[in-house]
Amino acid sequence: MPKAIPEKVTMEKLVSLCKRRGFVFQSSEIYGGLGSCWDYGPLGVELKNNVKAAWWQANVRERDDMVGLDSAILMHPQIWKSSGHVDTFTDPLVDCKSCKQRFRADHLKGSTCPECGGELTEARMFNLMFKTFMGPVEDAAAQVYLRPETAQGIFVNFQNVLTSTRKKPPFGIAQIGKAFRNEITPGNFTFRTREFEQMEIEYFVKPGADGERFEHWVKERFNWYIRLGIKPENLRLRPHEKAELAHYARGCTDIEYLFPIGWSELEGIANRGDFDLTQHAKHSGQNLSYFEEQTKESYIPYVIEPSAGADRATLAFLADAYAEELDEKGDLRVVLHFHPKLAPIKVAVLPLSRKDTLMPLAHDRIYAELRQDFMVQYDDAQSIGKRYRRQDEIGTPFCVTIDFQSLEDNKVTIRDRDSQKQIRVPMSELKKCLGAKVAGEAFDVLPAGGQYCLGFDG
Amino acid sequence: MPKAIPEKVTMEKLVSLCKRRGFVFQSSEIYGGLGSCWDYGPLGVELKNNVKAAWWQANVRERDDMVGLDSAILMHPQIWKSSGHVDTFTDPLVDCKSCKQRFRADHLKGSTCPECGGELTEARMFNLMFKTFMGPVEDAAAQVYLRPETAQGIFVNFQNVLTSTRKKPPFGIAQIGKAFRNEITPGNFTFRTREFEQMEIEYFVKPGADGERFEHWVKERFNWYIRLGIKPENLRLRPHEKAELAHYARGCTDIEYLFPIGWSELEGIANRGDFDLTQHAKHSGQNLSYFEEQTKESYIPYVIEPSAGADRATLAFLADAYAEELDEKGDLRVVLHFHPKLAPIKVAVLPLSRKDTLMPLAHDRIYAELRQDFMVQYDDAQSIGKRYRRQDEIGTPFCVTIDFQSLEDNKVTIRDRDSQKQIRVPMSELKKCLGAKVAGEAFDVLPAGGQYCLGFDG
Repeated sequence: MPKAIPEKVTMEKLVSLCKRRGFVFQSSEIYGGLGSCWDYGPLGVELKNNVKAAWWQANVRERDDMVGLDSAILMHPQIWKSSGHVDTFTDPLVDCKSCKQRFRADHLKGSTCPECGGELTEARMFNLMFKTFMGPVEDAAAQVYLRPETAQGIFVNFQNVLTSTRKKPPFGIAQIGKAFRNEITPGNFTFRTREFEQMEIEYFVKPGADGERFEHWVKERFNWYIRLGIKPENLRLRPHEKAELAHYARGCTDIEYLFPIGWSELEGIANRGDFDLTQHAKHSGQNLSYFEEQTKESYIPYVIEPSAGADRATLAFLADAYAEELDEKGDLRVVLHFHPKLAPIKVAVLPLSRKDTLMPLAHDRIYAELRQDFMVQYDDAQSIGKRYRRQDEIGTPFCVTIDFQSLEDNKVTIRDRDSQKQIRVPMSELKKCLGAKVAGEAFDVLPAGGQYCLGFDG
Repeated sequence: MPKAIPEKVTMEKLVSLCKRRGFVFQSSEIYGGLGSCWDYGPLGVELKNNVKAAWWQANVRERDDMVGLDSAILMHPQIWKSSGHVDTFTDPLVDCKSCKQRFRADHLKGSTCPECGGELTEARMFNLMFKTFMGPVEDAAAQVYLRPETAQGIFVNFQNVLTSTRKKPPFGIAQIGKAFRNEITPGNFTFRTREFEQMEIEYFVKPGADGERFEHWVKERFNWYIRLGIKPENLRLRPHEKAELAHYARGCTDIEYLFPIGWSELEGIANRGDFDLTQHAKHSGQNLSYFEEQTKESYIPYVIEPSAGADRATLAFLADAYAEELDEKGDLRVVLHFHPKLAPIKVAVLPLSRKDTLMPLAHDRIYAELRQDFMVQYDDAQSIGKRYRRQDEIGTPFCVTIDFQSLEDNKVTIRDRDSQKQIRVPMSELKKCLGAKVAGEAFDVLPAGGQYCLGFDG
């Protein structure tokens, strides 16, 4: 049989796998779906939560100079005037006078309707913010927006965070949360959606120190993806041209990933200067500068913003993990090579037989015990080969097989997803061994006092 | 000095502590705030994330019969017609014909305006769902709602989850996510807000088995709060009267907590029968029944719904943890007695002196190492007594003190928040010892091979 490994997975294959195995479903599917909205299924929610937890761990817990925040989606409407979103967060739209369809003017290739050839109206600017009304009366005073970015929730809390944490620049505030943009042309699965989740950092530095910190964050964020398993050849940096910089930005570099649709933005690192804090200070009348005790100097900090999408990162981890390979027997297998930290299911417990003699050990003891520490699946249906395929396809890094021999020698088999190799370990070492492997450690390290957690190639 | 322990903490004290220490800030505060919206600060986001993680662990990871889901906030508008929300999720409002103010009719005590005594209009029903428009055209066809509950995202994915996971009733789907209700009278800090986060389970059972499962879930959810430290005397069950049941409910029991505002709903466990799946099957034309292979029988499952609020639970854990007590020296201390699993900061690393001699050990080694596993704070400012007070006030269960003796004997001191007792442990045991303590284990257990993790009273 030929080795069948395509160059890149297609979006169609990803969408199909995601639906079949419960990673991502079309939102409101039984009602025909809702434009570009997606729901994360049982495996998808674990994967995305793991992506968010890994981001939080690297950027908040393990850093001395960062704290977290979780601000509300509904904010005071003046914030979006100050930030420039009310005036400039717009797309130009044209209508066809004949068929009444609407298009983005900057996406049209000709000057007539691409559908019917009819005459088009002048372009009108259309704001991308979703608006809604708070309180019982629908008038302009009650109009609020669904935030189009989490960043502003950080800026308006800058002084609250300074006061309550005694942090000093350079330091950052990190936030994960939903944002909404009424895109005219969303699409490409979860790549561009109207409702999406951001993972944003606003890192505050003294003006002048921004260049060095900008470089730090570009490197740091690039390496985060690599550390979690993205292949380096599928990642690249793209510094923005002056002309494409947003109105608030003094510089910006995108981290691009080779998605199935081609090289596209995965994350942007921007130098926002003092734009946001200055605007909010001006419009709110509050003092948003930082007073440096040693120098008796006050300044509005510059801000470096690494802004990632949780959905887009999840999609990249999915696409990058996908492979079609030959299994132990030379048959085709679909496998997701997730980093163990990201895999939705860490361990599958597979009794070799459904017979009652294995149940107490496999289900009531090993499965029950491992579940206290990891997301674990129990599967006793069909042949062991089919069960390995099912676990490969959802990216489970380790399968623990319990056989009749286990009842006698108190050992079980751990099978490694990537190498497909197996090792036999005493049950007393199982939890510790899996713990190290799931943390991505000790794949080829001998832990103190143990001899069983050698790598599968060891 | 008199022992100063008030019966219950007041809401004012909680709000003040939350702002001062960075648990909760008023949303958009620099612009005068936005009605009943709140932002979680650096400590609040950790606390709330810990509450959500503990819920997910107990209800998804540790259960054989549950999977997770994360559905979108924006859903097909037909869903809210099918569920009854468009027609019945309403409050009756009246206007004053003189002063134009608006009131909830069912909250009025007289028949005239409570503000100016003017004549009131007839009551009009006002829908509590926030609405917005998707796509560029603001017409009825583009109108969608911000979901007022996460539950419906579960129901419309029932078949997708069945197919992709091969689960069979009895089983449940769990979800954590934001929901929005345009309440006319929100208030009481984070108790009732227009934007809030739900932790909902829809548990599907064969009709007839619902009574027993309902009882299971009432007990299970009640005990979850107790296991995480809520005092039993501050929790009670309140079965609903027939007359107050929602249109979909066959039965409902509230778990009430003795909040600073009095006994109020913390969580509701409802028996929704087959109402939702039947409605969605009817309106979508899809088959939402379950086919039981053994009996060759098809049925629409009944649903037991334990519905908790993440914000409300967080508020209850905060209120219940709060105490004013006497410290080691007989002075007043404010302390949050959080369960270690919920505490935003698990460990504080406190060098006894700021001298450079202690820095390499305290900061570069112990702080750096512990941070890989826990949320840790480093504090070397002011006296050790003041630092203990700061950590007590934010509920840090363990302080690790490093002194000059540590440089010689490789031991450090762990100080317990609740008992204020101290033990001295070898640094080699520190991580393991704290790991057990933070997990809420081994407070009075001797772990294998160690003698240092005895409880502080051991």
